[in-house]
Amino acid sequence: MAQLYLQSDIEEIARGIEDIRDKLEGRTILFSGGGGFLGRYFSLVIDHLNRSALATPCKLIMLDNLITATAENDGQAGTEGVSFMEHDIIEPLTVDERLDYVVHAAGIASPYYYRAYPLKTLDVGITGTRNMLEIARENGARFMFFSSSEIYGDPEPQHVPTQESYMGRVSCQGPRACYDESKRVGETLCSIYHAMHGLSTNIVRPFNVYGPGMKENDYRVLSNFGSRIKGGRPLKVYGDGRQTRTFCYVTDAMIGFMRLMILGVPGETYNIGNPEPEVSMLELVQHVEAVVDRDMETHLIEYPDSYPGGEPTRRCPDIRKARIHLGYEPQVPLRAGLKRFFDWAMDIYTGNP
Amino acid sequence: MAQLYLQSDIEEIARGIEDIRDKLEGRTILFSGGGGFLGRYFSLVIDHLNRSALATPCKLIMLDNLITATAENDGQAGTEGVSFMEHDIIEPLTVDERLDYVVHAAGIASPYYYRAYPLKTLDVGITGTRNMLEIARENGARFMFFSSSEIYGDPEPQHVPTQESYMGRVSCQGPRACYDESKRVGETLCSIYHAMHGLSTNIVRPFNVYGPGMKENDYRVLSNFGSRIKGGRPLKVYGDGRQTRTFCYVTDAMIGFMRLMILGVPGETYNIGNPEPEVSMLELVQHVEAVVDRDMETHLIEYPDSYPGGEPTRRCPDIRKARIHLGYEPQVPLRAGLKRFFDWAMDIYTGNP
Repeated sequence: MAQLYLQSDIEEIARGIEDIRDKLEGRTILFSGGGGFLGRYFSLVIDHLNRSALATPCKLIMLDNLITATAENDGQAGTEGVSFMEHDIIEPLTVDERLDYVVHAAGIASPYYYRAYPLKTLDVGITGTRNMLEIARENGARFMFFSSSEIYGDPEPQHVPTQESYMGRVSCQGPRACYDESKRVGETLCSIYHAMHGLSTNIVRPFNVYGPGMKENDYRVLSNFGSRIKGGRPLKVYGDGRQTRTFCYVTDAMIGFMRLMILGVPGETYNIGNPEPEVSMLELVQHVEAVVDRDMETHLIEYPDSYPGGEPTRRCPDIRKARIHLGYEPQVPLRAGLKRFFDWAMDIYTGNP
Repeated sequence: MAQLYLQSDIEEIARGIEDIRDKLEGRTILFSGGGGFLGRYFSLVIDHLNRSALATPCKLIMLDNLITATAENDGQAGTEGVSFMEHDIIEPLTVDERLDYVVHAAGIASPYYYRAYPLKTLDVGITGTRNMLEIARENGARFMFFSSSEIYGDPEPQHVPTQESYMGRVSCQGPRACYDESKRVGETLCSIYHAMHGLSTNIVRPFNVYGPGMKENDYRVLSNFGSRIKGGRPLKVYGDGRQTRTFCYVTDAMIGFMRLMILGVPGETYNIGNPEPEVSMLELVQHVEAVVDRDMETHLIEYPDSYPGGEPTRRCPDIRKARIHLGYEPQVPLRAGLKRFFDWAMDIYTGNP
C-alpha cells in the first residue's frame, strides 16, 4: 500500500509534544472518527511514541462507522497500542477500559455528503456528540470536541483574524446549515456538560488543515489541485478567486490538537490553524505553481448547483489563546508545507477525476 | 374561573382574519404547545369562529405535555371544535385525522426552566420539531414553526430594526445557548423538510407578545410589573434599564400568526411583532405608570446569578415582509395595549410573588 504519510512528519509531531508526552504514559484515549485523515495521524503518532519514547504504552481505541472513511484508512489497526472498533456513534457505546481522554472527531464534513444527508448530519453532530460526552462523563475523562472554523460563517472584515469569542455570521437555514448547526449544537452540548457535570471539555476549531493522506477526491482545494496537476488538467477556482483562506500543515495542526487534548483549560475553546499568510485562491494558485514548478491553466468557474452556497469570503484564525494556554506555535511556512504535500501527492495521486 | 382573556379581543382577532377565514372551513389544525398562552388564544378564536362564522367547523387538536403549562390552561378543551391530547412531542405521534395545518408552538421558553433542564430543552426543540415535521409531511399539511426573536441574539445597531435575513449574533455556548440553539436547529429542520420534501413550511419569529392570560409568575417583564403593582411592591429593572424592546399586543400578534398560517409563502420566515415604539425598560416604566395612574418606586438591579446572561440590548422587528406577504399591520398602540392588559391584570393577578 502506498504510504499515506511521511515518517519525518510523524517524528516532527512527536517532537512537538516532547515536553508533555509523559501525560500519555499508560493512558487510554478513545477517538471517534478514527478512520479519517486526522485519526490516521493520531494512530501513527501514538504508535511512534509507544515504540520510541513511552515506558508504559498509551492505548488508542479508534471508533469509526466506516461510512465516509474508506477501508484503507483502517490500516493502522496493527500499529502499537492502537485498536479499532467499528461503531456508529449515533448508538450509545460502552467501553470496558477506563478512559483518560475522549477525542470526538467523527462527523459528516463533506459538503456533497451533508447536502445529500442533512438529517443524518444533524444526528451525528447532536446525538453522536451527546453519546461521546456521556462516555467521557462516566469515565471522568478529558473531552475534546472537533468543531470547525465553519462555525464563524462569513465574518465581517473587522472580525478577521477571528477570535474564539466571535459569535459567527452563519445562517441556520439553507444548504450548509445542517453541518454548521451540528457543530454549534455540539459546542452547546460541551458547554452544558462542562457547566452541569464539571466535565473537563475543550472545543477545537481547526482552520484548513492539509497534508499527505488527504484523499484525492475529498473536495478540499489542495487535494483537488494535486489531482488536477497530476492528471494534467486545468485548475478550477470557484467564484472570483478572491476569497481567502489560511492553510495549516498537518504537523502543526496535530501538535496543536495533541497539546490541546493534554493541556487545554477546561471549558475553553481554541482556534488551531496557521494565521499566516492569508492568501486568496488566486494567490494560492501562484504558490502551488511555484512549488510544482509548472504554469497551470486556471479557470474561474461558477459554483455548481450541487455546491452549498454561502462560502465565506475570508477565513483566518486568531491563535493568541492557543499560543498562551498551550504553547502552540505553527512552524511550517506555507511554501514549505505545500512542497511536502505536492511532492507526496505527485507520487501517490492517480490524476483521475 | 377567572377570565383569562377579553371577549372583545377574541372578536378583534376574528375580524382581523375575516377576509381569509374561509380557508378554515372544515379544516383540521394540529397545534403543539396547546396549553400555553398562545394555544389558549388559538382555541378561543377557533371556538368563536365555529359558533359565529364558519358553516363547516374547523377542528383544532391541541397537544401539550402539561409540564410547563398548568392544568387551568387545559380549560378550553370544552370549546367548540377543540380537543385536547396529553402528549410529549419528544415521542412520535400518529393522529387519525387528516391534517391541513400543523402549528408547532411547543417548547421550553422560560429562562429559569431551560437553565435547569438544558438537555431537555434541546430535545424538545430538535426531536420535537422533527416529530411534528414528520406528521405534517405524512399529511401534506402546511407547517408553521414558532421560532423566536431570540434567534437574532444581540444585533449590531445597524441591524435594528432587524430583518429576517439577519443571521443573528448569538452564542452557541453559555446559559442561553440551549434555548437559542433549539430554535436555530428547529429552523434548520424546517428548511430541510422544505427543500427535500417540498413541505410547505413557515417560520415565525415573534417579538415580545403580551396580553391578558399571561401567567403572573412567568418572568416576562409586563406580567412581572403587573404582579408587583397589584401587590404594592417596587418595580425591578435589570441592568441599566436602557435595553430596548418593542411590545406587541396579543390581538395583533394572533392576527399575524393566523394570517401567516394561512397565507405564508412556503419556505419563508416572518417577523411578527409591533415595531413601534421601541422603548427602553425605563421608558416602559413611565408608560406603565401613566396607564395605571400611579408613581411606582423602581429599582435598578443586577442580573441575578440564576438569570442567563447575555440579554440583548435592543430588539425591534422589521415587519415589511409580513406587511407585503400577509397584509399584516399592527393596530394596537403601546399605550392602548398596556391599558387593556393592566386593567385585566389588576383584576386577576394576586400580587403575591
